[in-house]
This record gives sequence, C-alpha cells and structure tokens, in this order.
Amino acid sequence: MQSSRNYVPKNPVHIECNIEKTLEVLGGKWAFLVLRELFGGKKRFGELQRAIPHVSPRALTSTLRHLEAKGVLERHVYPTVPVTVEYKLTPKGEDLHPIIKQMKLWAAKWT
Amino acid sequence: MQSSRNYVPKNPVHIECNIEKTLEVLGGKWAFLVLRELFGGKKRFGELQRAIPHVSPRALTSTLRHLEAKGVLERHVYPTVPVTVEYKLTPKGEDLHPIIKQMKLWAAKWT
Repeated sequence: MQSSRNYVPKNPVHIECNIEKTLEVLGGKWAFLVLRELFGGKKRFGELQRAIPHVSPRALTSTLRHLEAKGVLERHVYPTVPVTVEYKLTPKGEDLHPIIKQMKLWAAKWT
Repeated sequence: MQSSRNYVPKNPVHIECNIEKTLEVLGGKWAFLVLRELFGGKKRFGELQRAIPHVSPRALTSTLRHLEAKGVLERHVYPTVPVTVEYKLTPKGEDLHPIIKQMKLWAAKWT
C-alpha cells in the first residue's frame, strides 16, 4: 500500500468544507449586510440599524454577538452618558472583503 | 442646482443592494454547496445528494428549482429508463465561482 501512495489523489474533503466553515461565520443575510456597513469603518448600533433596512434591534443584536463570537468584529464600549458602543472589524473580518466584493461584481453583471 | 451637479457624490444605494441581490439568488447554505459540486461539471440528482452531507431530497429539490428559476443552472432530462436528470451551471452560474473561491481562501486562512 505504501508504494501506491503517490497515486492516491489528495482527499478533497478538507478544502470542500471550507465553504461550510465560512458560511458558519457569515451565518445569514444580516451578517453580510453588517459587514457591508463595517467595511466603511467603525459604526455605532444605531448607525447600523439605520443603514440596514428592515433589520429589527433583536436580529441586529444577535448578528453582532455572533460575529463578535466568531472573531470577525470587536465591540468597544465608551463610558459616555449615555454609553457609546462601537463595532469595528478585526483583521479576520476585514479579510472577508473580497467575498463581498465578488458578490457585488456578480450582481452588477447579472442582475 | 445644475452647476453643483459635479459635487454630488454618486448615490451608493444601487451598489450596496447588489449584495442583497446576490444573496437572493444564493438563498442559503444548500445553494452554496450545490454550486460547489456543479463547478466540477454536470451532476445527477443522486450524485448531488451523495456529495452534500445531510441534505434531504426535499431540500435539494427545492434548492435546485430555486437556482434553475434564477437562471444559475439548467436541468436536462434524458429519456432513458429510468429517466436521467442532469444539472449543469449556466454561464451566469459559472460566474459565481470567484465568490465561492474567496470563501474557500478565507476559511483556509482563518479557520
């Protein structure tokens, strides 16, 4: 069996499930739209809510917590009155930009 | 107002909602995984089902119909006994490849 090792193609399972891993982080529609906003720089909760049509505060909170837990964004709390909470992409989050960019390009061409 | 036209930035609304348009086509997790399989060439229903872990026949049928309706794939029926049904990406579908590729690259780097 050892001698035939070079003839066995590489198992593609690992590469294939990278798509699933990315989808697990991106989660759903709101995650993509939150990322879209944060590529332009840090934003407060209210700014995100105004920028993303039809998102409920509950869905936005849950999406932001999910993305924070996945290490895609950071939450910064400033002790102002009332408290200021800002969301900012991490380098891991910034690196999602090519995906969103390709989605924009595809729609511009085909829809 | 005419004279100030050059100073008005382009309205970004159209570009931004391209992400939503792409998400509408891609729909959800199963759509991404069906595309992943079809980038390798045409496939029969049973081949897709075996290649995508945990997908139910019902979810797979619904995903394939959605992608066909969006013009992303074509369904070819061959009058064999039993009938052979093959699914194949259209050029519009092939053009989704850069999105999936960027998702793979991101996961390879960060997960």
